[in-house]
Amino acid sequence: MTGPHSSSEPDLTDIFARVDENRQEFLDRLFDYLRRPSISAYGEGIGEVAEYIAGVLSRMGLEARVIPTEGWPMVFAERHDAPGTPTVLLYGHYDVQPPDPLDAWTSPPFEPTIRDGRIYARGAGDNKGQHLAQLLALETTLSCRGKLPCNVKVLLEGEEEIGSPRMPDFVREHRDLLATDLVITSDGPVDASGRPRILFGVRGVLNFELRARGAARDLHSGNWGGVAPQPLWTLVQLLATMKDSRGEITIDGFYGNVLPPTELEREALAGLPVDEEAVKRSVGIKEFEPPHGRGVAERLSSWPTFTINGLYGGYAGPGSKTVLPSEAVAKCDIRMVEAQTAEEIFAKVKAHVARHAPDVEVVWHGGMDPSRTPLDSPFTEPIRRGISAAQEDPLLVPAMGGSLPDYVWTKTLGVPAFGVPYANADEANHAPNENLEVERFFSGIKTGAAMLAYLGALET
Amino acid sequence: MTGPHSSSEPDLTDIFARVDENRQEFLDRLFDYLRRPSISAYGEGIGEVAEYIAGVLSRMGLEARVIPTEGWPMVFAERHDAPGTPTVLLYGHYDVQPPDPLDAWTSPPFEPTIRDGRIYARGAGDNKGQHLAQLLALETTLSCRGKLPCNVKVLLEGEEEIGSPRMPDFVREHRDLLATDLVITSDGPVDASGRPRILFGVRGVLNFELRARGAARDLHSGNWGGVAPQPLWTLVQLLATMKDSRGEITIDGFYGNVLPPTELEREALAGLPVDEEAVKRSVGIKEFEPPHGRGVAERLSSWPTFTINGLYGGYAGPGSKTVLPSEAVAKCDIRMVEAQTAEEIFAKVKAHVARHAPDVEVVWHGGMDPSRTPLDSPFTEPIRRGISAAQEDPLLVPAMGGSLPDYVWTKTLGVPAFGVPYANADEANHAPNENLEVERFFSGIKTGAAMLAYLGALET
Repeated sequence: MTGPHSSSEPDLTDIFARVDENRQEFLDRLFDYLRRPSISAYGEGIGEVAEYIAGVLSRMGLEARVIPTEGWPMVFAERHDAPGTPTVLLYGHYDVQPPDPLDAWTSPPFEPTIRDGRIYARGAGDNKGQHLAQLLALETTLSCRGKLPCNVKVLLEGEEEIGSPRMPDFVREHRDLLATDLVITSDGPVDASGRPRILFGVRGVLNFELRARGAARDLHSGNWGGVAPQPLWTLVQLLATMKDSRGEITIDGFYGNVLPPTELEREALAGLPVDEEAVKRSVGIKEFEPPHGRGVAERLSSWPTFTINGLYGGYAGPGSKTVLPSEAVAKCDIRMVEAQTAEEIFAKVKAHVARHAPDVEVVWHGGMDPSRTPLDSPFTEPIRRGISAAQEDPLLVPAMGGSLPDYVWTKTLGVPAFGVPYANADEANHAPNENLEVERFFSGIKTGAAMLAYLGALET
Repeated sequence: MTGPHSSSEPDLTDIFARVDENRQEFLDRLFDYLRRPSISAYGEGIGEVAEYIAGVLSRMGLEARVIPTEGWPMVFAERHDAPGTPTVLLYGHYDVQPPDPLDAWTSPPFEPTIRDGRIYARGAGDNKGQHLAQLLALETTLSCRGKLPCNVKVLLEGEEEIGSPRMPDFVREHRDLLATDLVITSDGPVDASGRPRILFGVRGVLNFELRARGAARDLHSGNWGGVAPQPLWTLVQLLATMKDSRGEITIDGFYGNVLPPTELEREALAGLPVDEEAVKRSVGIKEFEPPHGRGVAERLSSWPTFTINGLYGGYAGPGSKTVLPSEAVAKCDIRMVEAQTAEEIFAKVKAHVARHAPDVEVVWHGGMDPSRTPLDSPFTEPIRRGISAAQEDPLLVPAMGGSLPDYVWTKTLGVPAFGVPYANADEANHAPNENLEVERFFSGIKTGAAMLAYLGALET
């Protein structure tokens, strides 16, 4: 595909009407899917669910198959009806989070129940409800038109909730199978205001741990204080060289590869409707982390961060204990922005630690590079129009604060990747009482169909 | 008492012979005492043991009584046979540490057993074996001479192993009862070389905790990193302002009241036989804590230290977790030297924290002031000679690194206080298989008698 341009307005009346006619059937289909536990963390039911959803894809008229990996299988499907139009890869995941704690659920996690206009079930929002909406968009389009308006590939993963350990290699090894012009993922929530949004990027993440050791065993602080080295102090003093109290990350060379936001990204960030006081109230804080003077959206999208996820050593009980601990550990994550990479930042962390506290061990716990799709991608406009046709004009979010392995699309495959979430902001994913607003499920189906229609109408 | 001077050499032949004759009986008496659990932490058996040891003191011919407190009672006894001689207060404690873990004991903790020349039992060294040796010294002296060579008071506490919470008030409120010229405590071990020693001081200790809070709950590090304040970073950055990587404590004004060691103390420290490489090997360290160039004895005796006993917040499990913790706690102790006080240093900590991290809470967990008796006290020489007569010439230790409430003697009562330990260095106090070398029990009895004889021979 070369040089797509914006194009004529597709007519979606019949498709939207068909979605409205089939509400009960589509709900039944979703409930049937939600009733099948597929907890990747425990391995429960997951192979069966892969076969099940591949069957759903087949029956819709896609060429579907289950591709084994060393972990849980990938489900892949494709249909090429429209030569000369873009190929879009729809990505989702058929695994779900464990439902614990069970007793915090109002209705059982694998018995989907509608209350107050919401579907309560594990996987309702994350992610079965969202990718099934995408699939029902294909089915509805096919039933109305007999063919899809653009070429479609579907990839459903079974290990997203355990960190997508197989995705990077799988994508690298299946470049031809997965070859596409763009990727759309419907996962996560719409904006807190309820408006739909397009996510153009994610921050990367590097997880590592710092381990300091002192004596061979814990010692008495009176008998050994001032004599034996103190690994907790070693970590405190090392960490203090890595980030200062003004919020600046002071790891040597840390910001070297950061690309500042483009003018378009800056405008998009400025246009996001963030109520900063409401953000503070929502988590009970008085001030944001230093430095001050940055908007919340800019903080999450354009700045790397260094979080201590856990720091521990020595006595953690009530009162006091006169112990001089022999070991201390800091678990850390660094969220990276374009064009930092996990490998680069890990090397900088190691070099910094080697210079400041050479006896401290640095342990790699995995990483994902950041991903960023340009806001002025030729596919932005058709996606935006599709969302507008089915819902309302979406917000454009240059990057979200969290991390997803989107770099496998933008970097390994080298194509733009878009997040188009369908779920309500309070979907309670990963938590008890996960839910999806019923209307968002149906508007998701319509949105999926509309995006395909607009993409298919691109003049290439 | 005014102006004591060194005096004639007492003859101890009959007393030492009597100790040798009564070895089996004295061991039986010790075993009977050790068989009675008196665990202050659990309250087990402790009231009965107070009555028991008061009975022992009465039968020896001392005026003994059990004095109730809001906790476990004090056992007090006295005998005034020698007007014009010093009064010495012998302090010890009849409570013991819990024996856990029980399965690590070779023989049960409350069934005293002799193996390889050692008495194994909870309390053998800490402290029943040591203060019973002092009491048997009184008994033997009385049986040989019909009277004691100086005036004696005995105070046995029942809460030493839970931090002596009642001692400061008890001493303040019983100044007249406890009025004395000096205090001798036989607790802890002799020098690692096996040589006896006299301890002239202890470091003080201040226990406190720093609490930092961020959001009302733990947050996702991707969604909130760079937005929500991070209490672990707050603590790291605060602590880094309190002690630097060269080992200097940088709390504002911290060293203001530190009295440098006297010339006599410096000489004594230089004379202590410390094998620094053996010290390092014993706990598996390569280097001492910075700063370098200080001897181990000097570190423990003459320098305050700041230990992080425990630091924790966030995730402590395997692997990684992308959490931004909402709370972090550092438990700390500061060991103080003359003339710092717990109250003064706590005020300095609070002021420092208020300046550098005003939202961090500082929680007091108790404190004990340091204590220091001058090496040239008039009582040093008789105590030294008594030890020499029964064992060998003792080492003089200006202060030990740990903390005991000796300030109640030196500051509340205003009298010199001496530690004269009888136990072997590997007594395993507070640990399984606590033990006391049999010969040290008997030499302890002789030492106790000899010290009294030399004190009684002081010309006043």
